[in-house]
Amino acid sequence: MSVPKSHPRYLSLRTRDIIVRGVEKGVTSVHGLLAHGRGEAFDYMIGEKTTAKARKQIKRAAKLLLKAKNPVISVNGNVAALCAREIVELSKIIPAKLEVNIFHKSKNSKEFLGYENLKNFHKSRKREQNIRRWLIKHGAKEVLMPGKGIVKYIEHNRRFCNPDGIAKADVVFVPLEDGDRCEALIKMGKKVITIDLNAKSRTAKFATITIVDNITRALPLLIKEIKNPH
Amino acid sequence: MSVPKSHPRYLSLRTRDIIVRGVEKGVTSVHGLLAHGRGEAFDYMIGEKTTAKARKQIKRAAKLLLKAKNPVISVNGNVAALCAREIVELSKIIPAKLEVNIFHKSKNSKEFLGYENLKNFHKSRKREQNIRRWLIKHGAKEVLMPGKGIVKYIEHNRRFCNPDGIAKADVVFVPLEDGDRCEALIKMGKKVITIDLNAKSRTAKFATITIVDNITRALPLLIKEIKNPH
Repeated sequence: MSVPKSHPRYLSLRTRDIIVRGVEKGVTSVHGLLAHGRGEAFDYMIGEKTTAKARKQIKRAAKLLLKAKNPVISVNGNVAALCAREIVELSKIIPAKLEVNIFHKSKNSKEFLGYENLKNFHKSRKREQNIRRWLIKHGAKEVLMPGKGIVKYIEHNRRFCNPDGIAKADVVFVPLEDGDRCEALIKMGKKVITIDLNAKSRTAKFATITIVDNITRALPLLIKEIKNPH
Repeated sequence: MSVPKSHPRYLSLRTRDIIVRGVEKGVTSVHGLLAHGRGEAFDYMIGEKTTAKARKQIKRAAKLLLKAKNPVISVNGNVAALCAREIVELSKIIPAKLEVNIFHKSKNSKEFLGYENLKNFHKSRKREQNIRRWLIKHGAKEVLMPGKGIVKYIEHNRRFCNPDGIAKADVVFVPLEDGDRCEALIKMGKKVITIDLNAKSRTAKFATITIVDNITRALPLLIKEIKNPH
């Protein structure tokens, strides 16, 4: 859809189209679209501007990422669709590893029984590969994939991570994360930084640092802060 | 995704799966998923319950629909996916005509130039047919399609309507409508009833009666009210 720049909802509509294209490219899931819609509503309520509090959290996040021994950036379909270039740049300037991690059924899960799940599993594996390729297309040199590392405290989904990535990370940056996994990472003793527009979400509650902001506004500010910390 | 009934977000997650299946069936658009996500966030904020004010508006809506000479129910992809059975029942008990109307590029629009739009146009036409079939599968006897009727005051989208439906309706029930078209229908002198979870949306502002509620909760209440008006 071509939206004129003069449209009062221009930025929001353009972002919406970017995420829809993410689905068409096999990078974003349809459930990711729903999550984006929720984010739009919450963003609308904070006035679609980065708040003073978010700016403070961005500074704190920059410090924590620069201080970390093994920082890892966890990338899902929405992050990849919306900010591939920025997330790759961020990984280079910290420096931090990039790891693909999406919400999917795992092979060893108890829920992994029927054909429907098998289909979803293969779809998820393909989407992980698509995200990896998408990040490499945007300049990433190395992208870790979920492997034999285990995120404890979660039964079914997102349990598997990379042994050289999230498994041994001390600080994990997981923008647009779900509550269960954020809680599990914290329980494992890791520090978690997240970006979440819903200030009352479980992710926002559990994370060490929560930046309540639109990722498309917050990432450029975080990059600036890491390049020139004050 | 199979969600146990005990899950605190059971209803919300189940509804989410229904709308995702709507996309897979070619009834709902991917943009419709974003809209649903926004609705989820607004519903969360009103406590996911029908408010006293919404109940009053439902009573007013029932009266207006019963009093109307030519009431028409406008059905889009999200309405069809979420409430086909209820919307068909509603059309029978009022009685009111059903008309499919989705947000798409029209053939005569100035924007209708390139291949991309042509592709979208055919996709939209197909989706209109899918919605029609979906309603018939759920018991509808007749479903009107957009035709040579014109909704004035809108340039590009949703301009076309059925000459025997929305074009000559005095009352139009358009749940989950977009602001532009709602305003246009009002300007044409029609009374508009809508269901919208965003109390501050342009649709909510323009409509004659706005029910700020989740459509899956509001429609059964509206049906009950029409069957037994107090």
